[in-house]
Amino acid sequence: MHPIGRVVRQDDRVFLDIFPEYSQALDGLTGFSHLWVLYWFHEHDKPAERGILKVHPRGDPANPLTGVFATRAPVRPNLIGLTACRLLHREGTRLEVEGLDARDDSPVLDLKPYIPDRDSIPEAYTPNWVKRPSKKSG
Amino acid sequence: MHPIGRVVRQDDRVFLDIFPEYSQALDGLTGFSHLWVLYWFHEHDKPAERGILKVHPRGDPANPLTGVFATRAPVRPNLIGLTACRLLHREGTRLEVEGLDARDDSPVLDLKPYIPDRDSIPEAYTPNWVKRPSKKSG
Repeated sequence: MHPIGRVVRQDDRVFLDIFPEYSQALDGLTGFSHLWVLYWFHEHDKPAERGILKVHPRGDPANPLTGVFATRAPVRPNLIGLTACRLLHREGTRLEVEGLDARDDSPVLDLKPYIPDRDSIPEAYTPNWVKRPSKKSG
Repeated sequence: MHPIGRVVRQDDRVFLDIFPEYSQALDGLTGFSHLWVLYWFHEHDKPAERGILKVHPRGDPANPLTGVFATRAPVRPNLIGLTACRLLHREGTRLEVEGLDARDDSPVLDLKPYIPDRDSIPEAYTPNWVKRPSKKSG
């Protein structure tokens, strides 16, 4: 597993700076309105955090203690983050995106186009804790 | 990056056999109807295939040559597969799922709950090649 780029946050804007050797692999992406960004939760890359198996989702003790595979928490055995983003713009190997919650300098692992026929499941149901208002992701 | 389990295909059924040390991390998952399975395209884990930057999506020469980050092709620099599946059943550390296109014995890297508020974007648009009928994923 090698990073293919980095997240760059500048003021309120979020960019993906993809390494130049992968430039060709971006061709065609601007035909999509949205993409999946897979990145590494690098700030949690410590054995102790990768060993955490249960959390209170969104760091809220009012939420039930839950297995990490049933949450989007940034602590998990493999620290892969997954976010659907709007693709605003491509300039060379720099992509500007909207809606990415990754921290500045997060390694980017992969990009995939958002394909509604396979990715959009509006009728999927969730436990009640997902529906509670919160400020933190998890 | 360490596998957390394996894909097991038996006749028409698909299971995720999660390794016993991660059992607790599954608690709460059955509250969700769908989950994301992140797995490794192990059959393509060769330097030559990881160096491919452009493909004809779905292996169809009628589709335009496209950067791999703009496709879901199983050849890409980091061989991560991503599929939204229906969760049918959990028995211990075995999950039965529906809709997973991963090959038998694929290493599972991560599981995440499907959360429609963040994951479902029915209005996302795609290029025309995505809408063409095909038998192969990509």
